[in-house]
Parts: sequence; C-alpha cells; structure tokens
Amino acid sequence: MEYRISDKLAALKPSAIREIFKSLTDPTIISFAAGNPSPLSFPAADLAEIGADIFAHQSTAALQYSITEGYPPFRAAVRDRIREKFGIGREGDELIITTGGQQGIELCCKAMCNEGDAVICENPSFIGALNAFRSNGARTIGVPLAEEGIDPEKLECVLKNEPRAKILYVIPTFQNPAGVTSTLENRKKVYALAKKYGVLILEDNPYGELRFAGEDVPTYKSFDEDGIVMYCSSFSKILSAGMRIGYVCGPEEVVSKMVVAKQVEDVHTNIYFQMLCYRYMTERDLDAHIAEIRKLYAHKCGLMLSELDRHMPKSVKYTRPEGGLFIWCTLPGGADSAPFIKKALERKVAVVPGTAFNCDTSAPSDSFRLNYSTPSDEDITRGIAILGALASEMFGD
Amino acid sequence: MEYRISDKLAALKPSAIREIFKSLTDPTIISFAAGNPSPLSFPAADLAEIGADIFAHQSTAALQYSITEGYPPFRAAVRDRIREKFGIGREGDELIITTGGQQGIELCCKAMCNEGDAVICENPSFIGALNAFRSNGARTIGVPLAEEGIDPEKLECVLKNEPRAKILYVIPTFQNPAGVTSTLENRKKVYALAKKYGVLILEDNPYGELRFAGEDVPTYKSFDEDGIVMYCSSFSKILSAGMRIGYVCGPEEVVSKMVVAKQVEDVHTNIYFQMLCYRYMTERDLDAHIAEIRKLYAHKCGLMLSELDRHMPKSVKYTRPEGGLFIWCTLPGGADSAPFIKKALERKVAVVPGTAFNCDTSAPSDSFRLNYSTPSDEDITRGIAILGALASEMFGD
Repeated sequence: MEYRISDKLAALKPSAIREIFKSLTDPTIISFAAGNPSPLSFPAADLAEIGADIFAHQSTAALQYSITEGYPPFRAAVRDRIREKFGIGREGDELIITTGGQQGIELCCKAMCNEGDAVICENPSFIGALNAFRSNGARTIGVPLAEEGIDPEKLECVLKNEPRAKILYVIPTFQNPAGVTSTLENRKKVYALAKKYGVLILEDNPYGELRFAGEDVPTYKSFDEDGIVMYCSSFSKILSAGMRIGYVCGPEEVVSKMVVAKQVEDVHTNIYFQMLCYRYMTERDLDAHIAEIRKLYAHKCGLMLSELDRHMPKSVKYTRPEGGLFIWCTLPGGADSAPFIKKALERKVAVVPGTAFNCDTSAPSDSFRLNYSTPSDEDITRGIAILGALASEMFGD
Repeated sequence: MEYRISDKLAALKPSAIREIFKSLTDPTIISFAAGNPSPLSFPAADLAEIGADIFAHQSTAALQYSITEGYPPFRAAVRDRIREKFGIGREGDELIITTGGQQGIELCCKAMCNEGDAVICENPSFIGALNAFRSNGARTIGVPLAEEGIDPEKLECVLKNEPRAKILYVIPTFQNPAGVTSTLENRKKVYALAKKYGVLILEDNPYGELRFAGEDVPTYKSFDEDGIVMYCSSFSKILSAGMRIGYVCGPEEVVSKMVVAKQVEDVHTNIYFQMLCYRYMTERDLDAHIAEIRKLYAHKCGLMLSELDRHMPKSVKYTRPEGGLFIWCTLPGGADSAPFIKKALERKVAVVPGTAFNCDTSAPSDSFRLNYSTPSDEDITRGIAILGALASEMFGD
C-alpha cells in the first residue's frame, strides 16, 4: 500500500533534540544536549508521600475519567498562584491544564491556524514549538533575535507582509535556545505591534521562575490589557517533567476552543498527577522548593561558565545566563557549527546544533546549545575541557 | 480583539457527552450518560503497592522526560501481549504508546489527513473520534451501520465518490454507541474494499476484551496481510481511564509519522503510569483481573436488560450486548428522541442522544445510549423504571 501521509507531516522531520536524546543510550557520552531538569529538582520523597495518600483515600477520582479543562481545585490553585505572584490573568481570561507546556503551544496553534496560516517566531526558537506549528500546517516565519529581543522594525515589516499571520510566538525570558531575556521596553513595543496588526501573542515561559541572578522583567501577560496574550507555562522544570503537566492562561474565547481541541486529543491530562501537583502546591512549600532549584542551577551554570572561561578560545562567544537551563555558544567568523559538533560527538560530547532551532530549516548556523541542568559537575568539567580543546584545535587560541 | 479562530475549530462544538458529564454535578441525577468504566474495575490496592515501589526505587526515571514512542519495556510487553493473545502485529508493524486511545485516533488522522480530506465512518459512531477528525479539518462521511456491520455496497459507493478518503474508521466489536459486533464475513468484505481503494483502516477496539457472552470475532488487524490496518486500543477500560494510556499498532511508515506528531503534542505519555502499567502487566495477573471485570459487567448489563424488559413498552427496541459498556435504545416509529431525553432529564435520568453520534450533526435520531458500567445496581433499577414509565406515557404500552 502507498501510504498517503498528510502534507504537513510528510514534510516534518523528528526533532533533532529527541533524536539526539535517543542516541544517548551510550553511557560513555557526556550529554549537554538534553533540555532535562536536574533529577535533584524532583521532590520525590514528598511526591511519594502524597501519592500514597491519594491511592489510599482518593483512588476512585484519581483513576477515573475527569473533565477536560483540568482538576477544578488544581486549576483554581494555579490561577491564584500566577495572579498573586506574577500579576497574570484578569477579567475575561480562562485557564486550561495541558499535558505539558508542549500541548498548550500545540493547542493554541490548532485553535487559531488554518493550514497555510503563519506563526511569527523569534529566530532561533524552541524546536518543539516550531514543529508543533508545522504539524498543524502553519508556516513559521522567523524574526532575528537580538540582545534586547526581536527588532520591532523587522517585526513590523513581517506583520505588514503576512496578512495570514495569526500568532506571534515568544519566549521572552531565558529564551530557548539563545538565552536572551528581552527588555521591558522591547516587550511593550512588540505588544503594541501585535495589537495593531491583530495578532495573538503566545508567551511561553517555562523557565521564568528559574532566575538565579538579576531582576525579573514583567511578562507580556502581566500588562495584557487588551486580551491579546496567551500565557503558557508548566511544572516540568519546578516539580517533574515526566508527569507532563502544563497550563495556558488566556482570553476565554481562545481557551474554550483549546478545550474542545484537547477533548479530542487526550480527553484530559493524567488526573492522579493533577491531584498530586495540587496537594504539593497547597500542602508543601513550592516556593521554597523552587528556591532550592535556583541555587542548584546557579551553581551548575556558574561551574559551566568558569570552565568555558578557562578552556574556550576567546573567539568563541557564549551567553552568561541569569536563569533557565541553557548556554548558547557561537563559533568565530560565522563558521558552520556542524563540523565542530560532529567532531565533539566523536570525542563523546553531545550538544545541539543551532540549525535545529532555525525557522528556516535549510539555513546553516554558527551556534550550538549547551545544557547545564542535567549533567553532573564532573561531566561539566570533563566535557567543557574536551569542547575547549577541540575549539582551540579548530579555531586557534 | 477579534479572535480569528481556525475554521476547523470554529465549526466544532464541545462533545455532547463531555458537556452532559459536566452537568452531572447534581448528585440527585441518575446518569446513564457516561462512558466511564466501573470504579470497581480499578485494581487500586495493587496499583498503590507498585506505585509506592516506583517512587522508592525508580523515582528519577518516573519523574524525568522520556522518549516519545513509549517506555521501552512497556511497549515490548504490550506488543508481545497483543501478538500472543490476539494475533495482532506482524513484520513491518510498529507500536506507539499514546495518551489514551483518544490520542491514537487523533494522531492517526493528523498523520494522514490534509484539511478537506475525508474519513469514512460507521454511522452512528464514537463522538470523540468524529470530533478528532473534524478538529484536523477532515470531513466525516457516514455509512449506515446495520446488524452485521456496514453495508459493503454502500461503502463502495462512498469510496468511488470520495477520492480524498484517507481513512475508514471502524469500531468492529461492541460498537460505541450502537452495540453492533460486525461479522467476520463482513469484516473480510470491508477489508477487501479498503485495500482496493487504497484507504487505511483505523480499527478502534477499546472494548474487545470486555466480552461476557458469545464468541470472539477476529480483529481486522489479525488478518492484515497487506499492512493497511492501524489497530488502536487502551488500558482505560481494563486498568484505569484517568491515567490516560493507550496504544496504536500499525505499519511503521504511518506510526513513525504519528511519533513525530506526538513529540509536538505532549512529548510523551506520563511516564510514571507507563511504568506502573508495565509492572502491573508483568508482576500481577492482568487476565484474571479482566475476567473479574467481565463478570461485573455481565451482571450489570443483565440487570439493566431485565429492568428494560420489565418496564419498557414493547415498541421500544434495544440491543442485547455480549460485551462493552452500552445498550442502544430506539424509539418507535422513527420518533425524534430529543423530547424523550429532555423529559427524562427533568425526571433526573440522563442518557446520551443519538444525534451526538451522527456523522451529519444536523441529522435527527430516534435513538439514545445507555451506559451500565458506571451506575450502581440501585440506580440501574430506579433509573430504568423512570425511563420505562416515561416511554409508556409517550408511546403507550
């Protein structure tokens, strides 16, 4: 039989990150490729204790079908927390629990985009989001990301020429992969343009709570007086990634369509873990737990930066993050990073090529992404020394 | 802001079942409307015991990101089980773990259908599947379902006239909602037609193991020598619905595209519960547990049928299921079932209108669906008496 695959999926390749992740079954490889939180960030003992109590006293509710929007007390707790802590959510907004932040991104696109519609993205951007847009048949249009955010003039040029643009997708804080946190001034300009051109802003903020230096910058959603921002985040980086729990807060008109789309994607998110999250939030100290994760990542990021400072030739540039999980490295003279990455893997160090994050998948990249949350301190020290030696060989000291 | 919702979602209404489910917060209503398994079918004590052990000894793996295809030992165990017990899966087939059977159906459509392509369905059919197809912009084309299955002649007529048909969606065993189990002869004819016209068969079999009377009929997938059948099932009706674990076994070319689509829908299915399912399957006696569920549903179905026999006027027809969760009732003389259902709800008994399951959503229906797995024995007795009295009032004895 000739399998007549849909055009959108026929064109879509598996995520380079996932594929690299699969290839890492070799335990001798030091991986800076994952986007995984540190296993030390999982409060396993607390989750075990609450989990046992749920099985003992709430097992029927925890094992039965539930409603698509999310476990009601959990939804309310998340809504209250983001309103009180971050000023997110106002009259006219609703909140949906999703199967990870990933599903929130995908559902938002499905609710808004017909095949051939456009999603405007920072370039580079999160591969999982780019592919979610592509899997719905949307085109991804990149606007180059600079130090302070995307250039408003370039954005307006795209908006003028793309009447089918429905969504502007941004990761304003600790951007994945480039590590940029856009300024408030930039956010205000971008917001005004989205409003002017009638484009919905999809604000993805999985790392916002992982700041270990510097000052918070207000989210787009916190100043969304016009109901044009969908705010997406998750518990993957602050409680557990494997449980797959995220959420989206945005205008009811859009969220209600995401609910309909979610009904037919997975009916609802695993209810036992929604209950577990809810009870962890209300019975333990989530903020104290997050403070511990911040300390951990401050240490790991600091270690990786000091090793980069020691081993990398001066010509290799890299970001100095104030939070998040990643450092973004750029090779000198615009060199294509592919040969460097291939040789690094031969020396048993894995990183993610910048090409994976390009809106235009055929474009080359002089960059690659390093993750510091997953590897051990020893692996950070050993792995960065290997990358530094390789860079010195290829690009001189 | 004017929210420019995608055409496919703008046209899609929330599932009538989910909406009825939400309205059932009134505890005085007797609900025959749900499609929930009995809470007695959840082996909560066993799951609690294994779950505690996973937290104690495998917590890092259970809380971390995992691979999209599914937890490898679990995938292997499911593959082995369906091959050994049901002759499902052969050379060229692959298996993907999905977030419930619902996601398997949705991903299959996304992998195959462009907007405007067609999915041919039994009419009536499962609302969750119909809406999954619609949410991907596919058209649902109904072929009337008769006692032995869909009429091959009518099917061929549709196939001839629908060059954009990509998928034939069938629930051959204990069909939801109509309760029909198609004959092997019918299945062979339908299979031959799908092969002739190059259409993929999506076989949905969530209830197949819940047979409490009669003889098993071989699945389409068990005689799929041509690699044209995608087989979808789940653990919702035999272990827990709330955990959201299902699977699809089918040709690798299609499954690999579903993996790509799943990566960007939810990255992977909740890993803790994949591990829990795997250990339950391999450390406890799943088949003995299923045998207990069958006994329970034989009792509940038998009770509902005997109460229907006692209270319903002869002119009301209903199926006598040999398995599954549902009885399908048809009112006399082709009467629209809406007024009956409205009056039943006023008397605090909820059922699902047949219209919810129509491929053509504007078509009326003389039928409604009764669920016997969820209500207590007392509620079955009381609720059917109320429906019987109402039917006698409206249609005479």
